[in-house]
Amino acid sequence: MIKTDILIIGAGPTGLFAVFEAGLLQLKCHLIDALPQAGGQLAEIYPKKPIYDIPGFPEVMAGELVANLMEQIKPFQPGFTLGQRAETIEKLEDGTFVVTTNEGIQHHAPVVAIAGGLGSFEPRKPLLEGLEGYEDKGVAYMIRDPEIYRDKRVLIAGGGDSALDWSIFLAGVAREVTLVHRRNEFRGALDSVEKVQELKNLGKIRLITPAEVVQVAGKDKLESVLVRRNSDPEEDILVELDAFIPLFGLSPKLGPISNWGLEIEKNAIKVDNTLDYQTNIPGIYAIGDVNTYPGKLKLILCGFHEATLMCQSAYQRIHPEKRYVMKYTTVGGVTGFDGSKKEAPKAVVKAID
Amino acid sequence: MIKTDILIIGAGPTGLFAVFEAGLLQLKCHLIDALPQAGGQLAEIYPKKPIYDIPGFPEVMAGELVANLMEQIKPFQPGFTLGQRAETIEKLEDGTFVVTTNEGIQHHAPVVAIAGGLGSFEPRKPLLEGLEGYEDKGVAYMIRDPEIYRDKRVLIAGGGDSALDWSIFLAGVAREVTLVHRRNEFRGALDSVEKVQELKNLGKIRLITPAEVVQVAGKDKLESVLVRRNSDPEEDILVELDAFIPLFGLSPKLGPISNWGLEIEKNAIKVDNTLDYQTNIPGIYAIGDVNTYPGKLKLILCGFHEATLMCQSAYQRIHPEKRYVMKYTTVGGVTGFDGSKKEAPKAVVKAID
Ligand SMILES: Cc1cc2nc3c(=O)[nH]c(=O)nc-3n(C[C@H](O)[C@H](O)[C@H](O)COP(=O)(O)OP(=O)(O)OC[C@H]3O[C@@H](n4cnc5c(N)ncnc54)[C@H](O)[C@@H]3O)c2cc1C
Ligand SMILES: Cc1cc2nc3c(=O)[nH]c(=O)nc-3n(C[C@H](O)[C@H](O)[C@H](O)COP(=O)(O)OP(=O)(O)OC[C@H]3O[C@@H](n4cnc5c(N)ncnc54)[C@H](O)[C@@H]3O)c2cc1C
Repeated sequence: MIKTDILIIGAGPTGLFAVFEAGLLQLKCHLIDALPQAGGQLAEIYPKKPIYDIPGFPEVMAGELVANLMEQIKPFQPGFTLGQRAETIEKLEDGTFVVTTNEGIQHHAPVVAIAGGLGSFEPRKPLLEGLEGYEDKGVAYMIRDPEIYRDKRVLIAGGGDSALDWSIFLAGVAREVTLVHRRNEFRGALDSVEKVQELKNLGKIRLITPAEVVQVAGKDKLESVLVRRNSDPEEDILVELDAFIPLFGLSPKLGPISNWGLEIEKNAIKVDNTLDYQTNIPGIYAIGDVNTYPGKLKLILCGFHEATLMCQSAYQRIHPEKRYVMKYTTVGGVTGFDGSKKEAPKAVVKAID
Repeated sequence: MIKTDILIIGAGPTGLFAVFEAGLLQLKCHLIDALPQAGGQLAEIYPKKPIYDIPGFPEVMAGELVANLMEQIKPFQPGFTLGQRAETIEKLEDGTFVVTTNEGIQHHAPVVAIAGGLGSFEPRKPLLEGLEGYEDKGVAYMIRDPEIYRDKRVLIAGGGDSALDWSIFLAGVAREVTLVHRRNEFRGALDSVEKVQELKNLGKIRLITPAEVVQVAGKDKLESVLVRRNSDPEEDILVELDAFIPLFGLSPKLGPISNWGLEIEKNAIKVDNTLDYQTNIPGIYAIGDVNTYPGKLKLILCGFHEATLMCQSAYQRIHPEKRYVMKYTTVGGVTGFDGSKKEAPKAVVKAID
């Protein structure tokens, strides 16, 4: 059982910044996210796009902002359970919580902060008979660790940024990369499209378009798929492979959280914005895009503020006997759990003669 | 009379970021600040110190954060009335406001946002007979424009960062710089203290310590001061000069704003944090350090969030007939009032053959 002070569900910008604010209060955090990487919508949907309304950044790439946040929270050594969905929650007699993922990993904490954004990102799966039986046996809908495809034969399906970018990346890792898309046209960053064209010309990516995977087969694990060209529906192509990765996009679903007894409104969790963003269940907070209150704006900078106030309240809950006195980071510095210490250079008092 | 959409009192980080959020809603802003420069506490008290809790910045110098905010709001061309204190407010019959500064400049706007921090920064003045009569006639407590001291004889009094840094700066501008401090020891950044020592050794700064200015004199304007050494109180030194600049620190005072009929609690303005940070007077908002509500934290990042929600409400007030639909900056870009346009590179739809 993983134990922590604040269990954060969702490792988007809100959840990540909560780790920092909690750390300033000497509280430890652990994050669960359905995605294989931290960053939420920013990492999954628009990592290479600029954001203009993060205070102090006239322009910042979404991926860069996530990297900065990861750097900022490093001293507080958060734990991560990635690629798993928080499925159930149980309130113990002592008022603490146990949250269990779809893979059965249990997490225990006195405070739960739901920073689940628009919900857990779930892959859109192609409708193919028997497909689910091959999940984790050759079929994957997102790439957790590209190394597992080294020297393997991989087929990617899809026509967007993910399909393009992973085809490019895996062309340097896998033994064979086949890219299948139901149109000739791809939709993505110009340089990605051009790079795929180049790798195809070099024979490093095999392109089959416009076409679709229509059948999957294999004994204990996936061994081959059938690809049908729109132009030639009579003559299917058999592709032998080790991995089939349909990248048809991920869509967020509030999912299991909607059954946790929380008050839901407009597909979001109602919170007390007059104080600390707590939900109707004491000890469970909801911050960032996942919450709603009068005047709520689903913006990154709002999540930062909400996370900060939430941590103050969590501190009171965890240490009812202590009185917390806020210190500015500029004045008190930042003391990491790893023993690191950042602080402003001190002023000197020195005679001039 | 200066006219604008949102009149912002206080050009600290909160006021500055409000310009950006207002700009996204096509609302124009004008800022009044008692200080000669924008940036509030960050620029005045700790420009060269690092801040660690601005989301997305593992570390940022306060002065750098201000510079970034100025860059971020540039497209929205805010107006500034600097070095003046907002003194009085009048609500006109049509519900709009006129705010007048201590120098009589009038500002007219349908919405007033008070982002006054801990208050208007007012200098601590030495107790010297007749001193106030020389204000703006040789005596100044902050430096608005160093150029006015070019080739002049200047005496600075004080022993902190401002006294050190301005002595260093003016040593390269003024004809003569004298630095007077009541102790031998100065308190500031090590390199500033060392630089002053060096300039003193080179004869570019005349140092009189431990000593105090005890008398000011001059006919229509300041012409000389008497400096008394602690070590030799009998033999005062007459210093002929054009400017006497006591830099004994600025301390914030809520000041005139406390007489505007606003509900005040703990030296701050009570606001409605359940919705839009409006005060008890409709149309007047209070954001950032200057406001108070249950759970309030006086942090920069909180001011950013408050400014953002405030602008939404101001928009409704100014355009009751319009319905605003929020667009992400990443999606809609940023269109400046100066005709500038920032936007994310568009995805292409392109065939690969
Ligand atoms: C194209 C686009 C452009 C945008 N542009 C801007 C912009 O310019 N400015 C701006 O401020 N905002 C912008 N946004 C919105 C911004 O991305 C969101 O406000 C932000 O991502 C919210 O952060 P969050 O941490 O609250 O949630 P998210 O980023 O959504 O992260 C939530 C995370 O929680 C995880 N999760 C949810 N439920 C579970 C569960 N049960 N188990 C495990 N994991 C779970 C999800 O997988 C996800 O990773 C944009 C959004 C999009 C899509
Ligand atoms: C040494 C120090 C270290 C700090 N470290 C941190 C930190 O690490 N993290 C953090 O988040 N915060 C920190 N803070 C606090 C932070 O500086 C404040 O939260 C922030 O400055 C508030 O911004 P603001 O824009 O609301 O107000 P301010 O920065 O106070 O600006 C308000 C401005 O309004 C002006 N004003 C007020 N009344 C009037 C009037 N009537 N007429 C004209 N002008 C007026 C003032 O002159 C001032 O310039 C620190 C503060 C100090 C002093």
